[in-house]
Amino acid sequence: MKRILLIIILGVFSQFAFSQTALSEKYNLMPWPQKVIENNTPFFIDKNLTISILGNDLNKRVAKASVKFLRRLANRTGAFINTGFPKKNTKASIEINFSNISQLTVNDDESYSLSIEKDKIHINAKTDIGALRGLETLLQLVNFNEKGYYFEGVIIKDSPRFVWRGLMIDVSRHFHPINVIKRNLDAMASVKLNVFHWHLTDDQGFRIESKIYPKLQEIAADGLYYTQEQIKDVVNYASNLGIRVIPEIDVPGHASAILSAYPELGSKDNYNYTVERFSGVFDPTLNPTKEVTYLFLETLFREIAPLFPDEYFHIGGDENEGKHWDENTEIQAFKKKHHLKTNHDLQTYFNIKLEKILKKLDKKLMGWDEILTPSTPTTAVIHSWRGKHEGLNQSTLIEAAKKGYQAVLSAGYYIDRMLSVKEHYNVDPIGNAVLTKEERKRILGAEATMWSELVTPLTIDSRIWPRTAAIAERFWSSKDVNDIDNMQKRLKTINFQLEELGITHIRNKEFILRNISNYQDNEALKTLSKICEPLKVYSRNKGGTEYKTFSPFTLFADACTADAEDAMAFNNEVISFVKTKKQKHLNLIFQYLKDWSNNYTEFSKMNSNPKLISLEPLSKNLSSISKIIYSSLQENKISENDLKEANRLLIILKKPYEDVELMIVNSLNLLIDISNSKK
Amino acid sequence: MKRILLIIILGVFSQFAFSQTALSEKYNLMPWPQKVIENNTPFFIDKNLTISILGNDLNKRVAKASVKFLRRLANRTGAFINTGFPKKNTKASIEINFSNISQLTVNDDESYSLSIEKDKIHINAKTDIGALRGLETLLQLVNFNEKGYYFEGVIIKDSPRFVWRGLMIDVSRHFHPINVIKRNLDAMASVKLNVFHWHLTDDQGFRIESKIYPKLQEIAADGLYYTQEQIKDVVNYASNLGIRVIPEIDVPGHASAILSAYPELGSKDNYNYTVERFSGVFDPTLNPTKEVTYLFLETLFREIAPLFPDEYFHIGGDENEGKHWDENTEIQAFKKKHHLKTNHDLQTYFNIKLEKILKKLDKKLMGWDEILTPSTPTTAVIHSWRGKHEGLNQSTLIEAAKKGYQAVLSAGYYIDRMLSVKEHYNVDPIGNAVLTKEERKRILGAEATMWSELVTPLTIDSRIWPRTAAIAERFWSSKDVNDIDNMQKRLKTINFQLEELGITHIRNKEFILRNISNYQDNEALKTLSKICEPLKVYSRNKGGTEYKTFSPFTLFADACTADAEDAMAFNNEVISFVKTKKQKHLNLIFQYLKDWSNNYTEFSKMNSNPKLISLEPLSKNLSSISKIIYSSLQENKISENDLKEANRLLIILKKPYEDVELMIVNSLNLLIDISNSKK
Repeated sequence: MKRILLIIILGVFSQFAFSQTALSEKYNLMPWPQKVIENNTPFFIDKNLTISILGNDLNKRVAKASVKFLRRLANRTGAFINTGFPKKNTKASIEINFSNISQLTVNDDESYSLSIEKDKIHINAKTDIGALRGLETLLQLVNFNEKGYYFEGVIIKDSPRFVWRGLMIDVSRHFHPINVIKRNLDAMASVKLNVFHWHLTDDQGFRIESKIYPKLQEIAADGLYYTQEQIKDVVNYASNLGIRVIPEIDVPGHASAILSAYPELGSKDNYNYTVERFSGVFDPTLNPTKEVTYLFLETLFREIAPLFPDEYFHIGGDENEGKHWDENTEIQAFKKKHHLKTNHDLQTYFNIKLEKILKKLDKKLMGWDEILTPSTPTTAVIHSWRGKHEGLNQSTLIEAAKKGYQAVLSAGYYIDRMLSVKEHYNVDPIGNAVLTKEERKRILGAEATMWSELVTPLTIDSRIWPRTAAIAERFWSSKDVNDIDNMQKRLKTINFQLEELGITHIRNKEFILRNISNYQDNEALKTLSKICEPLKVYSRNKGGTEYKTFSPFTLFADACTADAEDAMAFNNEVISFVKTKKQKHLNLIFQYLKDWSNNYTEFSKMNSNPKLISLEPLSKNLSSISKIIYSSLQENKISENDLKEANRLLIILKKPYEDVELMIVNSLNLLIDISNSKK
Repeated sequence: MKRILLIIILGVFSQFAFSQTALSEKYNLMPWPQKVIENNTPFFIDKNLTISILGNDLNKRVAKASVKFLRRLANRTGAFINTGFPKKNTKASIEINFSNISQLTVNDDESYSLSIEKDKIHINAKTDIGALRGLETLLQLVNFNEKGYYFEGVIIKDSPRFVWRGLMIDVSRHFHPINVIKRNLDAMASVKLNVFHWHLTDDQGFRIESKIYPKLQEIAADGLYYTQEQIKDVVNYASNLGIRVIPEIDVPGHASAILSAYPELGSKDNYNYTVERFSGVFDPTLNPTKEVTYLFLETLFREIAPLFPDEYFHIGGDENEGKHWDENTEIQAFKKKHHLKTNHDLQTYFNIKLEKILKKLDKKLMGWDEILTPSTPTTAVIHSWRGKHEGLNQSTLIEAAKKGYQAVLSAGYYIDRMLSVKEHYNVDPIGNAVLTKEERKRILGAEATMWSELVTPLTIDSRIWPRTAAIAERFWSSKDVNDIDNMQKRLKTINFQLEELGITHIRNKEFILRNISNYQDNEALKTLSKICEPLKVYSRNKGGTEYKTFSPFTLFADACTADAEDAMAFNNEVISFVKTKKQKHLNLIFQYLKDWSNNYTEFSKMNSNPKLISLEPLSKNLSSISKIIYSSLQENKISENDLKEANRLLIILKKPYEDVELMIVNSLNLLIDISNSKK
């Protein structure tokens, strides 16, 4: 009997899992909900559409989201909706029902259900935040046919896998004004992210106004900082979207900016502290042995903490190499006196003091995984960024959770490394770790991190999006939602919808290419940009030119993005051709090769400026190798000379060039091998 | 002797004028300076470029502008400039010298001189603002050859024709967030505009936070308003660019929003005042007979005035039709009692009271030209918008100046009418009016006006720019700088440079087209958008659908702009062909016709959504008529049937369609006539 029941359950389950896969081929939802059922009764959108809020919308979150929903819907569909604002407690075509107002904590219930019928849509949720999540899902269900735009007829039940689904933005290396933050908050909400981690200070700038320590913004910010009013505005804006804001004041390392304003807090006397212009890890470090340091931090935290209602407060704590500590005899003496053997111990001493300061302010200390030492109190929250901890086999995330710490993962989600979306999507926060219920609960979730050494307001959107939408799915959806091809199909649509929220990833790419070409016809440049990607994993700053904060970020590498679209498509065709030998793949390969063969001729039509001249060899070599491969494939053989020349070109094209890499080299190599094997 | 001197002077002058014309073919400066001399010693831009400020930059305007200058230069040229900040009082490649700090008044000296030599650039000015103007000119002188980017070797002496060179932005009909305002301030400064007139209130919204009358933002703004901190931030931002900010609180008409919050100030009892959603002129009007009205306005002005350091304060005063005054017996009695014969007299009574209130606040009252009545004190400033005053032969601008008022012109510069740049460029503020020196001095200048009934943050830039750059030239440059073709050649380059400042006119057009086509290949749509312009002079809101503030503004008409590029080019070729009969013009005409002939085939490849379906007939009719004309021109004759069909299509294509007009219809007509005459 039991066995039969199990078989039935497994049968139902596998059928359900199967149907979810089939549906995800059909609907471009991201993150994919926990459960989608079709009912085939689409709701057609016309001017009579109305929204009603049934529930006490005290914080007005749902009302504001409904207004935005109506604007976004009108702008996407062109519908002249008569009623531009939601109604209260009355019948309407979209009825939103919820019972509680969320306090925006890690304990919030974000679940919702959504049902779309021919003439009525219901969104039901426990909290107002759940209702917001439902509205975003509804907007992703807009489709069209000849009759008009409609919402797909489905029933959805949904809730998140992790309670902490974040995006960190570093506004120190490059400052990002309020409007950049706000449009990214809108985009975050559209894919149900709920934590904005604001990396506000670093060697390159201190970005919050302090009224008590005004030199922080006067000396340490180059005029680029947020006023306290602006911070409140952003926190309020985020709250309306159901997004918590976690500030980070990175100490004791990464302190060049702070120390340029208050050098007396530094670990090295008579050192010329200045705001850093380069990228890297630097020596300036707060002095953890002086009482003034703690007085400063307590006063500063006391001033800043109230701007951020959230309980969690990030103190950084990463990458302190302790060089200035080693060079300071007083600090050495202090360590001896307090039995602190290593600099790590000294930093833990510092962290424990900070933890107490923050506790007085009703804040929970959070820090990068360097803070995880045997003496760190378990009230601290561990932000895992290095994956495997030095000398340990487990990731710091799992280790922390097992040791009793709440923990958040960022290892694997460093989007500034410019890796393919696949790499991040494949990282599961928990993986195969075996955890008790309590340990699992302590793993709050994860964050994508947008470090901004190489990113300005012009380019940041194209570095965050669309990859972060897929990462958001990893944080929200079931572990078994992991089909890469299906994700990429859905991501294509989501990618475009991000534009509606003001995300500039597509438009600004085009602007940069126009700028590079001095507004000449630049199809040749566009073609190149679709097969090149900016150098990955920080190698853009290795060798050659080192970027300063004020270097130009309007170069070809800045127009290129991860997952270069033509490269991806071409590489897929080559793989498919190698596997299947089917002509249809070869035909598409020929199309690309032909286009690339012509690239140099097209490129040469532009009047050369220095920015174009530097790209010329790339275009030239691409054209040359494409011609050889094209004719070799056509003729089903390759001559000795052509082979030699192709191999010479391959070696050149494999090398990084103008801070980009050509993403089709392996495929070109494969095609040469094919021609060569037929000789 | 005198005669000889005169001849020499005239000779030198005409030679100078001639050389200026020749130079303006070469350099893309806008506004064109008073004097440009070539010295052929370009300055090459490399990493060693430095800026030094010689002068006491108390307000830091020049320092801030220099930092921005260096970023813009780096981003345009790709140069990795070593020194990212200006130096003080030392030798440098660019030395900026000035003696006074401007107070930002109408009496400021904005003159500057600029000299570019092989290894040294000097900017000299009387004031810091003059220095800013010189830096903008310098950025317009960047050019390139194979060797690199360089500043053109020229010497310039420059100063403005008018002291008041403004842009008005209406943020009531559609709200425009701070970042929209800031990027437009940057663009204004780049073409030397110096007055931002901020139309902050109207029927559709009251956009400033009042701490004394909070219902203004709570009820009358839909949550879309500027906090006082944000206002200060914008005023400060503008000041750093040498731009004065003039606020406008429009009273006593255009008061629906104010009265929705404080109905007790209205002229009609028990009237249901609500924030207006449509465009037009509405009845709600403040009651000028009640003391509470003046108490309210005095208190409000007292609160708001300090946010705006400028002496001028705009009270609107336009388009009050007095309907509610006529309907109110108490107001009628009041008029009788105070011997106020007309509503105009009553409004003057109101204005005089306001003038006294503003005087107490050290403000000068400014208003639209309705305020110009015999009893208006000459301390008021007249903002001429209707051109010819009813019943008068002279423009209100000239009339006001002759009567002793300071005056500013906007008639002729209503950029929201979507007319060609030519129309505005051809309007000279003074024209042929004969004025005394004193009268001339009272004509302060002029303003372009961006009313925002049909304009959202997505589209506003494409409505302001690039036309306002040419208008800025009209306000700055000599009256005799008026060659349309030359202006259009220079404007093309300036148009692109506006993108560097974050102006979104090009990128957002592309986004709207992507949105309309649901991200399908949309070349056909792009082609159409280059020959269509949005309906002009407010006819978009006449007949058919009337737009509300929350209607979609992501339609085809919103992607189209004035001066549709292909239409302009094609129309020019047709005119040239008609004049010269040269084959080269005909060849280009054939190219366009061929492209348009294919449009419908291309268009039909897109999967149709409702937005595309509505555009289909336009594409179809264009293709049909283009095919007929193409073959007629090829064959040098047109058949009866083709002629009939072409004329039928012409009639259809002449009509407004989907809120756009096709701008090539007259040229198509001409081409048909040519074919027909050869029959």
